[in-house]
Amino acid sequence: MAANSNPGHRNKALNSLNSPKTLSGASFDLPGWSALQLERVETALKNWVACPQTCPAPAGLGEAMRYAVLDGGKRLRPLLVLAACEAVAGNPQAALRAACAVELIHAYSLVHDDMPCMDNDVLRRGKPTVHVRFGQAQALLAGDALQALAFELLTPDDSTMPAGMQALLCRMLAQAAGFQGMAGGQAIDLASVGQPISAAQLHEMHKLKTGALLQASVMMGAACGRPNVSAQRALSDYGATLGLAFQVVDDVLDVVADSGTLGKTAGKDAAQDKPTFVSLMGLQASKKYAQELLSQAHSSLRAADLENTAALRALADMLVNRGF
Amino acid sequence: MAANSNPGHRNKALNSLNSPKTLSGASFDLPGWSALQLERVETALKNWVACPQTCPAPAGLGEAMRYAVLDGGKRLRPLLVLAACEAVAGNPQAALRAACAVELIHAYSLVHDDMPCMDNDVLRRGKPTVHVRFGQAQALLAGDALQALAFELLTPDDSTMPAGMQALLCRMLAQAAGFQGMAGGQAIDLASVGQPISAAQLHEMHKLKTGALLQASVMMGAACGRPNVSAQRALSDYGATLGLAFQVVDDVLDVVADSGTLGKTAGKDAAQDKPTFVSLMGLQASKKYAQELLSQAHSSLRAADLENTAALRALADMLVNRGF
Repeated sequence: MAANSNPGHRNKALNSLNSPKTLSGASFDLPGWSALQLERVETALKNWVACPQTCPAPAGLGEAMRYAVLDGGKRLRPLLVLAACEAVAGNPQAALRAACAVELIHAYSLVHDDMPCMDNDVLRRGKPTVHVRFGQAQALLAGDALQALAFELLTPDDSTMPAGMQALLCRMLAQAAGFQGMAGGQAIDLASVGQPISAAQLHEMHKLKTGALLQASVMMGAACGRPNVSAQRALSDYGATLGLAFQVVDDVLDVVADSGTLGKTAGKDAAQDKPTFVSLMGLQASKKYAQELLSQAHSSLRAADLENTAALRALADMLVNRGF
Repeated sequence: MAANSNPGHRNKALNSLNSPKTLSGASFDLPGWSALQLERVETALKNWVACPQTCPAPAGLGEAMRYAVLDGGKRLRPLLVLAACEAVAGNPQAALRAACAVELIHAYSLVHDDMPCMDNDVLRRGKPTVHVRFGQAQALLAGDALQALAFELLTPDDSTMPAGMQALLCRMLAQAAGFQGMAGGQAIDLASVGQPISAAQLHEMHKLKTGALLQASVMMGAACGRPNVSAQRALSDYGATLGLAFQVVDDVLDVVADSGTLGKTAGKDAAQDKPTFVSLMGLQASKKYAQELLSQAHSSLRAADLENTAALRALADMLVNRGF
């Protein structure tokens, strides 16, 4: 991660965190803030994912797990967890665990998605996919082990986080990952290839497939503090809207960007005859829709009426305007 | 399950539970007790696994999940959870959730194990395996969703179980399923095919691959109550020993039983040149070893010094002597 190793960013980030002015509006230093947070996340992941020194996994499994998780990925979900925790002034240790747990679920889903029986993709984050590098059996196991590890991270046997928070975070993550969340969305995706699909069905698919985990990221970050019910609801709306916007932008980028920029094979949706927002509503309308969703996400944040939503606001802007 | 629909068993079970005499020794009515417990487990699984009426999963995913879990399996792990809970006079609602959660982890591991990139098995519990029936992609997703659902079952948003118990059960299950448990054991198994392997390595592989989840079943049942540290340790020993005995017996049965009796393809270990206890120490010595482990398991139970270990004792006897 370039941002992670850039000391300039780090200093800027420290300055911005020390200065209340920069947290209050458009001048928020997202690259600096992200660099700081990503450093925490990368260090934690390196320690927790089958670390060869402290907690090795047998027979090459650890290597495959680490390959799937480390040195790649935008870490969008962890950043959302940490930003939401910041918004509610929550427990930062708990949020770091939640951030890594969500990322492990995301990473496992990519490993399994890329396998020949699913999307059969050979390139991910600019590198060979896990099954190409380690074989299908090891990729299957690595994905399975990453999912289990996510729940292990959420339930430390120490005083980092109260038991009630551990249980709540496990519940949120399990629901977002399971058949009424990510896995369910992937099943709809599988079933929809080459089928006519309505806008409502496309929304439902993405709400589950991508949206559930993005929304859970925000809600899990919030669950590291004690926001009131109205703030919880507003943050949940923000997360859902952002999840949808993310997918709309993803569909747009699949058409307008190249594989090098994406770090994965571009143009795959059309090649596989997958329904997308672009195929359904066209390129320009999709871009406009993404902007509408962004503005809706900002409304939700205002409705949350929380002190420190600068990072959440900046992340939404970055997400929707990336690559355009 | 034949035992499940046999009213004679049910009445006997009720009688046995009402009579302290039958809980105190050799006269314990295991078939009756099991029938009662299995009825609870089957009903709960039917309600909780993507139930088409109350909690449907999209796009055929629910069907694949239910196919993987319902109407089959000996439910050994759930019975161990419930027996251990009984031994510590624990919370029966919590134990039922724990029993089903462990079974979901077991079921998902079978679905993934059977896939072409792993064991490539077409027959399981006398039926076509999940990927044969639903395709590989759906099998992969169903396994993934079953793992998530296990953690969802352990974290109900109601008053069934205190948060501390939820978190503890999630921790135990995640560790047993992950890279230092079941998934790790499978990775060793993968790497060991066709390789020379020592007795120590074979023990290590099975301790993780099968033993971890069996031991966790006992410990999770115990965690539904409040056993003292010495009882916890003894139950942990019992679970570990039983897990090992189970695998030794499995290896023996792979040689001496036919596919119809096993409900899966017999003789596969030898055909795939997999190291087993039989290939390492011979058939007779393996049988003797299983009996030694059984006696060790009974010693551990005595050391636990708990009131009501009749079911745990009877399960150990049944497990080791099945099919011989």
